[in-house]
Amino acid sequence: MGSAEIICVGTELLLGDILNSNSQYLAQQFADLGIAHYYQTVVGDNPQRIHQAIATACERSQLLIFTGGLGPTPDDLTTEAIAHYFETPLVEHPDVLADIAEKFARRGREMAPSNRKQALQPQGAQVLPNPVGTAPGMIWHAKGDVLIMTFPGVPTEMRAMWQETAVPYLRSHGWSQSTIQTRTLKFWGISESTLAEMAGDFLAMENPTVAPYANHGVVKLRIGARAENQAAAITLIEPVEEQLKKLGGIHYFGNDDDTLAIAVGQLLKQRGETVAVAESCTGGGIGHLLTTIPGSSTYFRGGIISYDNRVKVKCLGVSEDTLTKVGAVSAEVAEQMAVGVRESLGTTWGISVTGIAGPGGGSEEKPVGLVYVGIAGPKGVAHERLNLGETRSRQWIRNSSACSALDLLRRSLLSDS
Amino acid sequence: MGSAEIICVGTELLLGDILNSNSQYLAQQFADLGIAHYYQTVVGDNPQRIHQAIATACERSQLLIFTGGLGPTPDDLTTEAIAHYFETPLVEHPDVLADIAEKFARRGREMAPSNRKQALQPQGAQVLPNPVGTAPGMIWHAKGDVLIMTFPGVPTEMRAMWQETAVPYLRSHGWSQSTIQTRTLKFWGISESTLAEMAGDFLAMENPTVAPYANHGVVKLRIGARAENQAAAITLIEPVEEQLKKLGGIHYFGNDDDTLAIAVGQLLKQRGETVAVAESCTGGGIGHLLTTIPGSSTYFRGGIISYDNRVKVKCLGVSEDTLTKVGAVSAEVAEQMAVGVRESLGTTWGISVTGIAGPGGGSEEKPVGLVYVGIAGPKGVAHERLNLGETRSRQWIRNSSACSALDLLRRSLLSDS
Repeated sequence: MGSAEIICVGTELLLGDILNSNSQYLAQQFADLGIAHYYQTVVGDNPQRIHQAIATACERSQLLIFTGGLGPTPDDLTTEAIAHYFETPLVEHPDVLADIAEKFARRGREMAPSNRKQALQPQGAQVLPNPVGTAPGMIWHAKGDVLIMTFPGVPTEMRAMWQETAVPYLRSHGWSQSTIQTRTLKFWGISESTLAEMAGDFLAMENPTVAPYANHGVVKLRIGARAENQAAAITLIEPVEEQLKKLGGIHYFGNDDDTLAIAVGQLLKQRGETVAVAESCTGGGIGHLLTTIPGSSTYFRGGIISYDNRVKVKCLGVSEDTLTKVGAVSAEVAEQMAVGVRESLGTTWGISVTGIAGPGGGSEEKPVGLVYVGIAGPKGVAHERLNLGETRSRQWIRNSSACSALDLLRRSLLSDS
Repeated sequence: MGSAEIICVGTELLLGDILNSNSQYLAQQFADLGIAHYYQTVVGDNPQRIHQAIATACERSQLLIFTGGLGPTPDDLTTEAIAHYFETPLVEHPDVLADIAEKFARRGREMAPSNRKQALQPQGAQVLPNPVGTAPGMIWHAKGDVLIMTFPGVPTEMRAMWQETAVPYLRSHGWSQSTIQTRTLKFWGISESTLAEMAGDFLAMENPTVAPYANHGVVKLRIGARAENQAAAITLIEPVEEQLKKLGGIHYFGNDDDTLAIAVGQLLKQRGETVAVAESCTGGGIGHLLTTIPGSSTYFRGGIISYDNRVKVKCLGVSEDTLTKVGAVSAEVAEQMAVGVRESLGTTWGISVTGIAGPGGGSEEKPVGLVYVGIAGPKGVAHERLNLGETRSRQWIRNSSACSALDLLRRSLLSDS
C-alpha cells in the first residue's frame, strides 16, 4: 500500500519548547502495524512551508499523517493549508459544529466564534472524530491518490483518535497486513553485556528478534515478532520468552510495565507477609517506590527514615558503639537497621539501606557509591555490599540503592519458598 | 546568514525506539543563538534517503545540522552519504585515527578495524572533535555554499560537541548576531490561569516576552529576552523579573532549576533549623525530595513513614481515639503526626501528610484527592486541607501532596522571619 510519512506542524517544536513525542508514538504504531515509514518532518505554523512539506512528502510517501495546527487560533492553519495545496474548497460540517458547541455547553462555557473554523474540512474529506477534545481531524483521499490524516498536537487527543479511528481504518483498508508484537523481559543485578553474551544466539534471530537494552540499572531483553495477526505473533514470542526467562534465572523479575516494587508486592501478597523499610541515603525512596502501587497497604506497613545517626539509634536501636567503631555506612549498621525496623513495626521483613550517595562525603576507604543493603526476616539477618561507582550521579546511586534493597527482598522471598 | 535545518539520521527514530531529544535540544539552541530554523527531518540509515533529505534541505536552508550515523558499524553511513551527495572523495585524517586508537588504549581495549572509518571525512572538511566519545564530526563548507555540521546521535556526545565547538564557531562566523536569554520564575499554590490573568500586561510584551506554563502543579512564568549579548538580555529581564516576583507574592519560590525542596533547604540552613517528616500517603516521597539535595543532612534529620495506622500510634503517638473518631485522613491526625515526629526526632519543625491517593479508597465524605498536610513548629501546630481532585492520578496526588507539605513549611519559615 505504500509508505507513511509524519508531518508535525508547530512553531513550538521549532523553538524546542516541547519534545516531539507524537513522532515517536506514531513511529512505534507504524512498526506495530507493519506500515513502512521512512521520513518525519517538522514544520512551523506557516502556510508556504506546510505546502513545501506536502509537496516533498507527496513525491515519496502515500500516507501523510499530520499532527498539530487544528486548534481555533489564527496560528492553527494545518487544515486550511492542506486544502489550499490540493486546490480544494473548505466546507463546514454542521454536525461537527454542533458537537463542538455541545462540548463547550457541557463544560458550562460558551463557544468562541474562532472555534467555528474547527468544523471546516476540505470538500470530500471524512471527519475523524475527537472523543477527548474539541478539534476533530480528517481522513481524506486527496488528489494523486495520497491518503491524508490529521490529528491535534495534544498527545492524549492524538493517541485517542489514532487508536479509536485511524487504526481500525488502516487495518480495514489493507494498510496493515502484518503486526509486530513486542514483549520486554526485565532483569536486575546483571550487566547488559553479560546478559547479551548469554543471550548471544537469540540476538541473531530474525523473527522474533531479541534486542538488549538497559535503563537506570534495569536490563531488558525485548522480543519483537512480526506475524499476520496478534495471536500468531504471540505464538512466536512465547517459546523464546520462556527460554530467556530461564537464561536470566534469578535476575528476571517481570515483563513490560513491571517494576521491582510490583514484583515484591505480588510475592508478599501471595504469602500474606509484610515489610517495613529503614532508609538512610535513600531518604524515603524505597517507601516511595513501594507505595507507588495501589493497594500496597496490604503488605507495606511503613518505615523509619534515619538520615541522621541519632534517629538510627533512637528509632531503630542501632548501637552507638557500632556507629563509633565501624561508622554508619557498614554491614553491621545495615543489619541492625533492618532488624530494628522489623521489630519496631512488627513486620515479617525489614529492609534497609545505608550508603554514600555523593557527590561529597566519600573517602578512600568508603568512596561515593559504597552502599550496604540489609534484610531481616523470619530466618535471620543478612546484608549485601554494593559498589555503585564514584562516577555515577547522586540520583543514580540513590535509585540503584533503593532498587537493590527491593531486589534483595525479592530474592529472599523466592529462595524462601 | 540564512536558516538552519536539522536532519536526524537513524532507523531507531523511525521505529520509535527512541525519543528525538536531539531535535529539541538543537531547536532551543537555535532559538538562544537567534538563528532562524524552519524545518526538521528524520531519515533512516539509508544512502538514497539521506541524499533526498540533503537535496530538499539545500533548497531551503543554509546550515545543515546532522545527528546520528557516525559510528563504526556498516549502518553508520552519514559521512559517506554526505560526501557522495556532494561528489567529494573521503580522506583519512591520521590525527583522528591516532586519537581514536588512543581512546581505546586508555580504556584498555583494542581498536576494531571498523573504527578506522570514523577517521574519514570529505575532502576539505574540518574535523569537529568529540571530547567524550570516539566518533568526531565535521564542519564543512560544501558546494553551493551550504555549511554542514555532523554530530553523533548519542545526546551527551552531541551536546558536548555542540557547546564546545559548534557554538563558538557559529558565533565567530557571524551566524549568531543576537542571543535569547530566558529566566523561569516558579510558583506554587496558584493556578496557571489566575497567575496569567494577574500577569496580563506582561504577557503582551514583545521583548522581553513573558509566557505562562504549568507542570506537575508548579506554575511558571518564562521571561525571554532577545539582545545583542547576554548582558544586554539580562538587563532586559531583570526589571520584569522583579515585578513578576512581587506579583506572585508568597507563591513565588525560585527560578529555573530551583525546587520547593531547595527553597526549603536554603531557608532552614540560613536559620540553622531542622525538619523531620511524618508521611502516610506519600510513603516517603517528602523525605525523598528533601534528600535529593546534596548536603540536606544539615537540616533534614529523618522521618517516620506511617503507612499503617499502627505505626501512626506507635511511632508518632497519634491517639487511637482520634483515629477511631475522625479517621486517619483528618486534620487532627495530620497535626498529631507533625507534633509526634517533631518531638520524637527532636527537630525545629515537623511536617506531615495524610490523605487518599487513590485510585481506590475514596468515599463521598472523603473522596480520592482529599489530603491534609500538617506542620508543627516552635509556635505550635497547624494544618491545611487540600482537595486535589478525584480525576487526578495516584502519582499526581502523591507528588502534589509532598510538594504542598514542603510549601507549607516554606511559607511558615517566611512568615516566621
